[in-house]
Amino acid sequence: MRNIALFLKYNGTAYHGWQVQKNACTVAQTLEEATARVVKHKVHMTGCGRTDAGVHARVYVANFRTSCTIPTDRLPYALNTQLPDDIVVFNAMDVHDDFNAIGSCVRKEYTYQIYNSHIRDPFYTDRVWFYPKHLDEKIMAEAAARFVGTHDFAAVRSVGTDVKSTVRTVYHFDVERQGDLIYLRICANGFLYNMARAMVGTAVYAAEGKISPKEIGRILDEGNRTAAGPTAPPGGLYMTQLWYDDGKIAFHV
Amino acid sequence: MRNIALFLKYNGTAYHGWQVQKNACTVAQTLEEATARVVKHKVHMTGCGRTDAGVHARVYVANFRTSCTIPTDRLPYALNTQLPDDIVVFNAMDVHDDFNAIGSCVRKEYTYQIYNSHIRDPFYTDRVWFYPKHLDEKIMAEAAARFVGTHDFAAVRSVGTDVKSTVRTVYHFDVERQGDLIYLRICANGFLYNMARAMVGTAVYAAEGKISPKEIGRILDEGNRTAAGPTAPPGGLYMTQLWYDDGKIAFHV
Repeated sequence: MRNIALFLKYNGTAYHGWQVQKNACTVAQTLEEATARVVKHKVHMTGCGRTDAGVHARVYVANFRTSCTIPTDRLPYALNTQLPDDIVVFNAMDVHDDFNAIGSCVRKEYTYQIYNSHIRDPFYTDRVWFYPKHLDEKIMAEAAARFVGTHDFAAVRSVGTDVKSTVRTVYHFDVERQGDLIYLRICANGFLYNMARAMVGTAVYAAEGKISPKEIGRILDEGNRTAAGPTAPPGGLYMTQLWYDDGKIAFHV
Repeated sequence: MRNIALFLKYNGTAYHGWQVQKNACTVAQTLEEATARVVKHKVHMTGCGRTDAGVHARVYVANFRTSCTIPTDRLPYALNTQLPDDIVVFNAMDVHDDFNAIGSCVRKEYTYQIYNSHIRDPFYTDRVWFYPKHLDEKIMAEAAARFVGTHDFAAVRSVGTDVKSTVRTVYHFDVERQGDLIYLRICANGFLYNMARAMVGTAVYAAEGKISPKEIGRILDEGNRTAAGPTAPPGGLYMTQLWYDDGKIAFHV
């Protein structure tokens, strides 16, 4: 059996996230059905993370096993003919048998987009967090810096999935304003459920003056979810970079 | 009665163009209904042009008459609470009684976006013309330049609306590539029905080698629609600039 990694982009607006669910349209299910039509057998996709409903991906990796003989470089074109407009496969790669889109992934980056303008933009609907009150990006950056490092991130996750440990390492959390758009880029070795969105919500909370950036260390230490900021809405969140290294293969996309 | 000019942006994907029609959802109708709820009387909107179904506006001007006393600078906020996410009023201005959004407009610019890549992008659906075969922007620019000047544009319009004359002046028609995106900017004193999209289709036709840019002068002279290129799809077209000057008021947006 071949093990194939697919590189995707998707607009998550119409989907209940990545993960296959009963009675809900998900990216994984849509991709599995499209792939089955191409390879002529049932497939199971392993994704690089459980993006939530409405969250987008500029880069996403999934792998599946197949007995088909379609050349790897033709697979994206064949799959795209079967996929809806909001999901695109832009590359495919043969990977070793033990490669696993989530297990082999050592680092991920999410980018969050806030549209900070008095008036909303009709081309940004479901693609940004529209925030009409002015946000000081310097205070947000100060707050963001407090998350960098290895910490217990229980204070910025939603309960919902069982994890052995809530300790993660955040490599960077940068805040950059370009005109009315504020980009928040978070890179970590892993993300707890809603962690990226709660970190964004906490940076906004700091800009609103509801907490001081200095309090973030204590909030993380205490692990109290209600002390941190709210979970930012899903439409502003994009998976943007992935790093793989499992001893047999290493790449960055 | 006050005469008020509204400055809009809209994502035209969900609309059957600007103009009010029976049994079809249009931007004008949606705006008239939203405005009526705010000013508490029926209103008629005069738009700056009849954009087609699926065409967008980064800038659009419409004017209406009202007896309401809402301060002009509050009107955008009041209207936006009544408008769907894909239509936004970003400014409002009191104008003299004879001002007319179409009659006072002396120049318009449309920008057309082509996404020229092997693989489509899920964030560009209905917002670009996805064109997978490589296009040479230099040939397109050569073709585009042939349209500049005062000509009879009957060869690049669709029959459908009665006009006194098919002579227009094109001030510029520029082609610029930025990575996989090609921007075509057309500025004229007026546009015939489908003229911008047929001009774009003709520039693409030239890049495909189906006509030589040198033939465009003759095609315009002969006024034969079938000799020019096809009408480019609506999703790539955006109204982007407007110039007003009616002797009493002059502005550019």
